[in-house]
Amino acid sequence: MILTNATIATMVAPYTDSSFGLIDNASIVVIDEKIKWVGKTSALPDSWSSSEQILDCQGNLITPGLIDCHTHLVYAGNRAREFELRLEGASYEEIANSGGGIVSTVTATRNASGEDLLQQSMPRLKQLMSEGVTTVEIKSGYGLDTENEIKMLRVAQELADKTGVRISKTFLGAHALPAEFKNDADGYIRTVCEEMLPRAYHEGLVDAVDGFTESIAFNVEQMERVFEIAQSYHLPIKLHAEQLSDLGGAKMAAQRGALSVDHLEYLNPLDVDKLGNGKTVAVMLPGAFYVLRETQLPPIAALREKGIPMAIASDCNPGSSPVTSLLLSMNMACTLFGMTPSEALGGVTIQAARALGLEKVIGSIEPDKQADLVIWDTDHPATLSYHIGLNPCAAIMIGGKWQKCLPWDHP
Amino acid sequence: MILTNATIATMVAPYTDSSFGLIDNASIVVIDEKIKWVGKTSALPDSWSSSEQILDCQGNLITPGLIDCHTHLVYAGNRAREFELRLEGASYEEIANSGGGIVSTVTATRNASGEDLLQQSMPRLKQLMSEGVTTVEIKSGYGLDTENEIKMLRVAQELADKTGVRISKTFLGAHALPAEFKNDADGYIRTVCEEMLPRAYHEGLVDAVDGFTESIAFNVEQMERVFEIAQSYHLPIKLHAEQLSDLGGAKMAAQRGALSVDHLEYLNPLDVDKLGNGKTVAVMLPGAFYVLRETQLPPIAALREKGIPMAIASDCNPGSSPVTSLLLSMNMACTLFGMTPSEALGGVTIQAARALGLEKVIGSIEPDKQADLVIWDTDHPATLSYHIGLNPCAAIMIGGKWQKCLPWDHP
Repeated sequence: MILTNATIATMVAPYTDSSFGLIDNASIVVIDEKIKWVGKTSALPDSWSSSEQILDCQGNLITPGLIDCHTHLVYAGNRAREFELRLEGASYEEIANSGGGIVSTVTATRNASGEDLLQQSMPRLKQLMSEGVTTVEIKSGYGLDTENEIKMLRVAQELADKTGVRISKTFLGAHALPAEFKNDADGYIRTVCEEMLPRAYHEGLVDAVDGFTESIAFNVEQMERVFEIAQSYHLPIKLHAEQLSDLGGAKMAAQRGALSVDHLEYLNPLDVDKLGNGKTVAVMLPGAFYVLRETQLPPIAALREKGIPMAIASDCNPGSSPVTSLLLSMNMACTLFGMTPSEALGGVTIQAARALGLEKVIGSIEPDKQADLVIWDTDHPATLSYHIGLNPCAAIMIGGKWQKCLPWDHP
Repeated sequence: MILTNATIATMVAPYTDSSFGLIDNASIVVIDEKIKWVGKTSALPDSWSSSEQILDCQGNLITPGLIDCHTHLVYAGNRAREFELRLEGASYEEIANSGGGIVSTVTATRNASGEDLLQQSMPRLKQLMSEGVTTVEIKSGYGLDTENEIKMLRVAQELADKTGVRISKTFLGAHALPAEFKNDADGYIRTVCEEMLPRAYHEGLVDAVDGFTESIAFNVEQMERVFEIAQSYHLPIKLHAEQLSDLGGAKMAAQRGALSVDHLEYLNPLDVDKLGNGKTVAVMLPGAFYVLRETQLPPIAALREKGIPMAIASDCNPGSSPVTSLLLSMNMACTLFGMTPSEALGGVTIQAARALGLEKVIGSIEPDKQADLVIWDTDHPATLSYHIGLNPCAAIMIGGKWQKCLPWDHP
């Protein structure tokens, strides 16, 4: 198949000079599930130019399929009542006492059947997909026991099977301390290491292992114990770090070769060079920054200067980021964090692929990568970050197959 | 027609106690274009209970159709390049010198044919509509001469004709000073008063008259001259006031009985009681607050205390608020301004109707109002403000007629 008469944001490096790796009057040749060729239409090899399946893109923009590399998309219930109570002036204590907070999501998720969890999570995935998202990372972390963590990861797998979206499954047993281990974080971490992670791993449900270092979660030394086990299985690691305070989690994770360290509002700019040689991706989550009305900005200038790759994700979760729009997350990264539109698109394509260890497979438009593509009803990639609440996604292809598409007026 | 088995947020006053005027196990009777009856299904009069057209809403939520009471939705071009330049570090002077700012939108809008303008504006209207918006106010203000202001208002009318959405057309000649009147604001205001407004009025294109008092626009005395003419035609007035500084515009407009005063970040809380006896609506525009990274909050607590009705709108425009999501505007009003979900839904229904002088026609679910309704795939109205980037709109009715609806899985 040939997609022709397109403007293509290849996102092939270097794209950070605002070029987006842009090629106009361009074509893409797709054979089976892969990209075979991309370039100026005038340079299209003769052997392909007589292909039977030619799609005229009418000058529209094609980008790599978007990648949401940090979500907690599988959960039950919602926290709208808590949101309402808080705005009506209830204190955090009153909310906690009325069963709010992450505890309420853990309870609802534990009580839900797998089928229920799938039904409740599906609209969130479809909303992301409707905006051009073709790969989604989904974390466990609301089960907080073996059975329920595994249930969440199975639902993540089923979402992939039912929609065709690529799902990367991350084990996040070390997300929060469940009530049954109150005052015994070490005991819980032992269960994570000796039972939960091994079981989930042996069932083939773990692509990466994540954790949360924070005063309200686990300390750096506890997280290291989890990472020891993960790395003994040769599983890649990731970490929620420096979101609310600077505990040094990012540095520890990067030194262990983490795929990504995520949040980073309180990362000291002077510590940025300890994130290593550009292997570890800094994942920006502006949705949580916005919802929490945080004022401490992540050290974007230092990250940029040191060449640390920056990804952007929705952080979709029922508490601090009930966000199911990756385009809006891009706008927030620009508006709130001062990232450029080219960095924003890179942050949800090639850098997000890197944050999942998939940079050889997806994230840019170049030969031998998977044909994960989005056709947008727009002529320039900067418009994707500029518009707020406009969805110009016209068509989505995953692994060479067209997927369901948009409402109004689109083909 | 009877819509039954619904949870109905009637938004009939008083709803500000977070009740949303909620009725569960409820039904609505629609005859022709109007609501005839609403209440508990158990109280449905026998004469209707055998109606032939009964729609089971399966427990889903019904609200009044949403009303976006402040937009500049008709314009040509976009300002994505300016957005990009700014984030890459260009100064405002450099952007202005490269043709950015409102001038670029005025130039593009003047150069566009009416047909072009319609084509470019339609996706924005459809995006709003896809989220349950059934009434949209659209302002002129990028023509800034008689011919082009009238062209914009005609396009607004055509948008209504082609989509079925109710459009309220506002003349905003006094939006900015066009280049040809540089250093002669009085001369421009004279043209607005003597030529532009009279012509637009006599062509039947003006439902209300708006203006912008600010150091970068017009002073209060100049706006009063425009309002004099408007009121001589018995046209209602509105004003962009106190967005960037406190010039006293809101007070002046309210004293003249304005339908609304809009923005208000710099309104002195002590002046809130000068907004009159609750006739003038305070319209909150959190999208512009967000985009401009403003830190001065509008005096919400004082407005609430004095019982000033508060509406919320997208302010859809290509510069300070390229927003086409009223649901997101509701979330921003909660997250950024601390409004409650009940105030937020009231702000895009009954209070927005008031801001357009249409509170007897639309804005709540009660007998004799127009049947402008939205069915949402959710069980509680607080979820509409809580979710960010999720569109649960399942169906839209305007004046008793079903309109086009949503993608994925909806009927």
